[in-house]
Amino acid sequence: MTNRSTEELNGITHLGSQGTKYDMDYNPSVLETFINKHPENDYFVKFNCPEFTSLCPITGQPDFATITISYVPDLNMVESKSLKLYLFSFRNHGDFHEDCINKIMKDLIALMDPKYIEVWGKFTPRGGISIDPYCNYGKPNTKWQDVAFNRMANHDLYPEKVDNR
Amino acid sequence: MTNRSTEELNGITHLGSQGTKYDMDYNPSVLETFINKHPENDYFVKFNCPEFTSLCPITGQPDFATITISYVPDLNMVESKSLKLYLFSFRNHGDFHEDCINKIMKDLIALMDPKYIEVWGKFTPRGGISIDPYCNYGKPNTKWQDVAFNRMANHDLYPEKVDNR
Amino acid sequence: MTNRSTEELNGITHLGSQGTKYDMDYNPSVLETFINKHPENDYFVKFNCPEFTSLCPITGQPDFATITISYVPDLNMVESKSLKLYLFSFRNHGDFHEDCINKIMKDLIALMDPKYIEVWGKFTPRGGISIDPYCNYGKPNTKWQDVAFNRMANHDLYPEKVDNR
Amino acid sequence: MTNRSTEELNGITHLGSQGTKYDMDYNPSVLETFINKHPENDYFVKFNCPEFTSLCPITGQPDFATITISYVPDLNMVESKSLKLYLFSFRNHGDFHEDCINKIMKDLIALMDPKYIEVWGKFTPRGGISIDPYCNYGKPNTKWQDVAFNRMANHDLYPEKVDNR
Amino acid sequence: MTNRSTEELNGITHLGSQGTKYDMDYNPSVLETFINKHPENDYFVKFNCPEFTSLCPITGQPDFATITISYVPDLNMVESKSLKLYLFSFRNHGDFHEDCINKIMKDLIALMDPKYIEVWGKFTPRGGISIDPYCNYGKPNTKWQDVAFNRMANHDLYPEKVDNR
Amino acid sequence: MTNRSTEELNGITHLGSQGTKYDMDYNPSVLETFINKHPENDYFVKFNCPEFTSLCPITGQPDFATITISYVPDLNMVESKSLKLYLFSFRNHGDFHEDCINKIMKDLIALMDPKYIEVWGKFTPRGGISIDPYCNYGKPNTKWQDVAFNRMANHDLYPEKVDNR
Amino acid sequence: MTNRSTEELNGITHLGSQGTKYDMDYNPSVLETFINKHPENDYFVKFNCPEFTSLCPITGQPDFATITISYVPDLNMVESKSLKLYLFSFRNHGDFHEDCINKIMKDLIALMDPKYIEVWGKFTPRGGISIDPYCNYGKPNTKWQDVAFNRMANHDLYPEKVDNR
Amino acid sequence: MTNRSTEELNGITHLGSQGTKYDMDYNPSVLETFINKHPENDYFVKFNCPEFTSLCPITGQPDFATITISYVPDLNMVESKSLKLYLFSFRNHGDFHEDCINKIMKDLIALMDPKYIEVWGKFTPRGGISIDPYCNYGKPNTKWQDVAFNRMANHDLYPEKVDNR
Amino acid sequence: MTNRSTEELNGITHLGSQGTKYDMDYNPSVLETFINKHPENDYFVKFNCPEFTSLCPITGQPDFATITISYVPDLNMVESKSLKLYLFSFRNHGDFHEDCINKIMKDLIALMDPKYIEVWGKFTPRGGISIDPYCNYGKPNTKWQDVAFNRMANHDLYPEKVDNR
Amino acid sequence: MTNRSTEELNGITHLGSQGTKYDMDYNPSVLETFINKHPENDYFVKFNCPEFTSLCPITGQPDFATITISYVPDLNMVESKSLKLYLFSFRNHGDFHEDCINKIMKDLIALMDPKYIEVWGKFTPRGGISIDPYCNYGKPNTKWQDVAFNRMANHDLYPEKVDNR
Ligand SMILES: [Ca+2]
Ligand SMILES: [Ca+2]
Ligand SMILES: [Ca+2]
Ligand SMILES: [Ca+2]
Ligand SMILES: [Ca+2]
Ligand SMILES: [Ca+2]
Ligand SMILES: [Ca+2]
Ligand SMILES: [Ca+2]
Ligand SMILES: [Ca+2]
Ligand SMILES: [Ca+2]
Ligand SMILES: [Ca+2]
Ligand SMILES: [Ca+2]
Ligand SMILES: [Ca+2]
Ligand SMILES: [Ca+2]
Ligand SMILES: [Ca+2]
Ligand SMILES: [Ca+2]
Repeated sequence: MTNRSTEELNGITHLGSQGTKYDMDYNPSVLETFINKHPENDYFVKFNCPEFTSLCPITGQPDFATITISYVPDLNMVESKSLKLYLFSFRNHGDFHEDCINKIMKDLIALMDPKYIEVWGKFTPRGGISIDPYCNYGKPNTKWQDVAFNRMANHDLYPEKVDNR
Repeated sequence: MTNRSTEELNGITHLGSQGTKYDMDYNPSVLETFINKHPENDYFVKFNCPEFTSLCPITGQPDFATITISYVPDLNMVESKSLKLYLFSFRNHGDFHEDCINKIMKDLIALMDPKYIEVWGKFTPRGGISIDPYCNYGKPNTKWQDVAFNRMANHDLYPEKVDNR
Repeated sequence: MTNRSTEELNGITHLGSQGTKYDMDYNPSVLETFINKHPENDYFVKFNCPEFTSLCPITGQPDFATITISYVPDLNMVESKSLKLYLFSFRNHGDFHEDCINKIMKDLIALMDPKYIEVWGKFTPRGGISIDPYCNYGKPNTKWQDVAFNRMANHDLYPEKVDNR
Repeated sequence: MTNRSTEELNGITHLGSQGTKYDMDYNPSVLETFINKHPENDYFVKFNCPEFTSLCPITGQPDFATITISYVPDLNMVESKSLKLYLFSFRNHGDFHEDCINKIMKDLIALMDPKYIEVWGKFTPRGGISIDPYCNYGKPNTKWQDVAFNRMANHDLYPEKVDNR
Repeated sequence: MTNRSTEELNGITHLGSQGTKYDMDYNPSVLETFINKHPENDYFVKFNCPEFTSLCPITGQPDFATITISYVPDLNMVESKSLKLYLFSFRNHGDFHEDCINKIMKDLIALMDPKYIEVWGKFTPRGGISIDPYCNYGKPNTKWQDVAFNRMANHDLYPEKVDNR
Repeated sequence: MTNRSTEELNGITHLGSQGTKYDMDYNPSVLETFINKHPENDYFVKFNCPEFTSLCPITGQPDFATITISYVPDLNMVESKSLKLYLFSFRNHGDFHEDCINKIMKDLIALMDPKYIEVWGKFTPRGGISIDPYCNYGKPNTKWQDVAFNRMANHDLYPEKVDNR
Repeated sequence: MTNRSTEELNGITHLGSQGTKYDMDYNPSVLETFINKHPENDYFVKFNCPEFTSLCPITGQPDFATITISYVPDLNMVESKSLKLYLFSFRNHGDFHEDCINKIMKDLIALMDPKYIEVWGKFTPRGGISIDPYCNYGKPNTKWQDVAFNRMANHDLYPEKVDNR
Repeated sequence: MTNRSTEELNGITHLGSQGTKYDMDYNPSVLETFINKHPENDYFVKFNCPEFTSLCPITGQPDFATITISYVPDLNMVESKSLKLYLFSFRNHGDFHEDCINKIMKDLIALMDPKYIEVWGKFTPRGGISIDPYCNYGKPNTKWQDVAFNRMANHDLYPEKVDNR
Repeated sequence: MTNRSTEELNGITHLGSQGTKYDMDYNPSVLETFINKHPENDYFVKFNCPEFTSLCPITGQPDFATITISYVPDLNMVESKSLKLYLFSFRNHGDFHEDCINKIMKDLIALMDPKYIEVWGKFTPRGGISIDPYCNYGKPNTKWQDVAFNRMANHDLYPEKVDNR
Repeated sequence: MTNRSTEELNGITHLGSQGTKYDMDYNPSVLETFINKHPENDYFVKFNCPEFTSLCPITGQPDFATITISYVPDLNMVESKSLKLYLFSFRNHGDFHEDCINKIMKDLIALMDPKYIEVWGKFTPRGGISIDPYCNYGKPNTKWQDVAFNRMANHDLYPEKVDNR
């Protein structure tokens, strides 16, 4: 009744395990991958992460965001529980909003070597203003490099309504 | 008063029948087709399926999703009650989210040989993160192959708001 | 104070009349047109029709849909009250969802010979699944033929959320 | 840093454990409790359970509901992961909507002996109609018995909008 | 695995049957009941019926409404598929909005003899105005008679926003 | 197939008639009634009127409102097309918001002599502020007089969100 | 065509005037009244004021709120343009949220001597938390004093969802 | 503190003036312009006009719409209070929905000679159907002519949900 | 221009200060008060706190909630920046949802001795179920004790819709 | 634990400082920048500013808007607290809506020399009409100049619904 063989699940250590450890500072080494079983057709995978929190590097006060990560896999795919632990490791870590988003994208590129990836953060306001950074990447010298530029050029033509309530 | 003749409905066995049987594991053989009466103009048919459920292949816990299937028919079209029975057969079946979505698309391509098809799954969260896979397909060596790439390249530029509540 | 002359309204028999008759089965002959007074610039006219109902051709049970009709007029335009009577004539008529939508488009093309037209139906669910067909048409050998293909190729990249409630 | 002592957590076997087993038919024996540490003041606890599914006892087709459970604890409280396993056990079980809701309430009364409890199910439609049962209970010969009647008498004065989409 | 015995389902002829007939004019005789298995505790059952349609008794044009029916059962309960057939029988029947709602309530009282019942119709607009009738009933000489008056006296203190779009 | 006899419709002159005349200033004489066929049980009838417009008595600029009228009939009921014509007669009439709402209620009391009635207007803003008057009435020396005070005392505990957009 | 006589409008100096002056600090003297023409029946008047802004008395930073004012008039009513000028006078004035709301209520009581009044402010967040004060008043030794307490005791049982976005 | 000099405001007669007159029939001569101070960069200006009303040219009954006007200025810009008076002049004027929208666009082109303009009307339903016309214009022999065609070709791919309530 | 004197602000050390320290574990000692300047009339103050996060005491994984705190002050009021620091101190602290909410209420009672207070937490789901505890308190032997019971007895009759997305 | 070094934060004087001064008239000199640490990949940063207010240059009455600023940084990025102070300086400054939006864009171009920037204002209505200006800019002789034109040409194809409430 289960469709992934044991060896296809090789390397997954967090999912279904007991006694998961939560790192107290930024730790990309917790990220794990599994293999893509559908390499013959491209597809998108999106993670919705509304429970992201970090600290302001200057004032130390907590920041909160919804982070959306979308990518087109090549050979490897990120396992979702390890992604959860990775994002948790920002909890007591200080960084600017713009830096967090770029760093997450770069760590996932290093991990998976995807065809395409984008990361969008939507933070709660401080002083009446909220900040939403968005970065993306397409594998150089492939059509996905053009896709990345076109998606950037057409990004967010319809900003959502924000009224701080 | 009815616009489909009996022979145009040939091969439909589930719709309007009593005593429908529900398979207890993944079973693509329940899928049925009827003929496309409007082959002279292309059109889309979309199925909204908010009642999809399967099992996690590792932990055995239930997963829930809304699945959207859109296609442009060629000669054959999938009958909706047989589609319902097919999706039901995932109920006690274990598979990763990404694998379910790709498998559904491949089964429907094998069944109908459509000009174009796409499948999008939006799952409920586990551990604070939800996963939304999206795959598509255009018949090779037709203009629909380009349509498929363009739709993939422009996929989901406006992620919906998800806050886990 | 009224801006249409009597002869410009020639051929409109239903609007403002008493004792309107409602046909009990599919009847495209009730459709009426009036002339387009702005032929020098193209424009869209959209009809929102949330009160459409027909019957299932196999089970006889009632089906309900919101139908949206958008077109770019050439010389003639469909009068809205006659459109209402036409859609009403499906009330006790049996047809598949996909067939209703294609038939409505073809009847309006025969009536108005528009530059462009599209028809989108969004039906309520049966057995947990709902079906939304979409067809369109551009006048052959005009730029509107390309518009029709481009609109089809970019159709519904953002499926609305449907949860059956 | 953790506020519950080991003995206060005595009897909790599912939460945080590996290799959870999922029962394949209705099984109230998986339910577990922990002690109420705030007996000096009454309070409500509400569970939102949007992932409930069972089977129709006559046709065997799957039913889906959001179930809301609210109670005022007396000495014992239901542990949430055991509640999840209990609700899962309806997955392949056949019962009418009205019977499921009453049964859930009675099992939780037997488990916890609460001061007050109510259970509300909101099911997805079949044949264009959806059904929402609601039952409640106040401990006999206490003020909560009157609370139960008053809440029943004022139940759902503002039915939510349902349009099957 | 099924929780209702055969005799507890005695009298249900429409649910799960093939070849259901749909009446073409108002017909309360299609209504069927089943027995209440939880008479020891009062509870509400609500039906959401967004697919109601009838005809205007003067102009013959179709009317559309969402009808909500809520009741507290005594010994008998209305079976939902028979309710669907009953509501369908208004499809080609002419009546004022206010009369439809009162008639539905009276037919269900005659059928089930419930402790309490209420019926609320929300119709689509004609000429820019929409009409929403609401009636209720509590069994005479029981506490439910007072419940009925109190619910009427507190009815709809917060009218929903309607903008005809 | 029509449920109101000819004499029960006696006095209705606007509904279904051709050549309706629209008054250009405030005219309560267009209001018409029909008889209540369900006097044995009290019920509410609500009119949603989102297309109300009048003029400011001082500046002459147009005002717009959604007006909600709810009443419990005694012997007579207001016919909806005549209500539409009555509300239309405010179109070129100048009055303060508070005065319009009270005047509408008083005219309908004079017309129908209802058991209970309330009128609520929600106007669009001028200078960043919008005004929502609400008045009600219960027949003196009946229980509806108490209902009116209680509804006034509990009016609008949850003001809707208004942000002028 | 205008329904208020010149003397009934006596004392209104801001509405319809040119060259309105805007005060730069808190100034209750701009408030004006007009007479209540419907003293024989009680009614509510609500002002929606989503454009309120003041300054923090300690940091000097701007604060923003939606303020809702509801009252039951006795003999006098506040004129809405003068209310706008009054609220504007808080623009460069420093006060705690809780103090602004109480002060507005007290100034309007002094101006109009109403039967009942309530003021609710909903401010935008600072540091991730927003504050919503609510105060009310019923004329002493009248039934409105009890209304005020009952409305306070039942205030805001359903807090709106706030997510700072 | 004011950023427009007196001569830059030359020709504005309605804004800030007392005793504004409201025309009783269609009058484009009330429209006024002011000069564009940012001719070195193109930009859009959009007017949201939810308070538009006119009359049906055949039945005389009132029609209501939200009208959206968007344009890219060249040398002149329409002043918003004069636009309000212009739209008001349709109040007692009879015209088809499609004709109103085209006429508004043509009058504004004659007034401002803009680089680009579009007008979209969304009317309330009559007989269950609502009509939404959309027209646009780009200055001939400029790139804005292509912009106009492209915007027309991609118009309204996602029709808003309309349910007449 | 500022309305609170220096001595009225006595005891406020966090608001407007530089170099605020954020505690790393639960610390009620950061809470500060200021005096109530309107003791002659009762009023509510509500805090919306959508950025609350703590840890699960058993698994260590992060939990997220929106917490709403409403109270009626007696002599003292809690200062909002100190409340922010207090809630922040739960960030790395482990406790059950039900325990967090009761503890927050008790700490605020000890701090302010309010007439009335209530605390409502709405947490994000784990394993498909979310938990919302609600507690309240009225000063013993005052009318607020009855208010507390009545608010508890009428708590949450309309559970919000939760679908985990 | 903090990821920006002291010299990387060089030039930031407002963030985290005590005793911030708020300018009383338009003052672009308060704007500050910090360096872009991710110059190797382009990305967007969006500011949501729902608390913007200025004065009408003719009538002096307050205007309110939500302003959205999106840009692609080159070497420098605007610091968000300085942006807040800059926007605050419009508080007592008089300017037309269209002029405010163009001025903000030009000041930010002068400050940061970004690759791309756009500014969109959505104002609250005056006299029933609201105005939404939108301007953008791409660095001349780069691909961003084309991006700017394309974004302008495709601007706001789906105007949001505005009903002034
Ligand atoms: Ca803030
Ligand atoms: Ca918001
Ligand atoms: Ca959500
Ligand atoms: Ca839905
Ligand atoms: Ca169904
Ligand atoms: Ca819905
Ligand atoms: Ca609506
Ligand atoms: Ca206004
Ligand atoms: Ca709004
Ligand atoms: Ca904040
Ligand atoms: Ca929000
Ligand atoms: Ca209508
Ligand atoms: Ca609607
Ligand atoms: Ca979860
Ligand atoms: Ca949700
Ligand atoms: Ca609105």
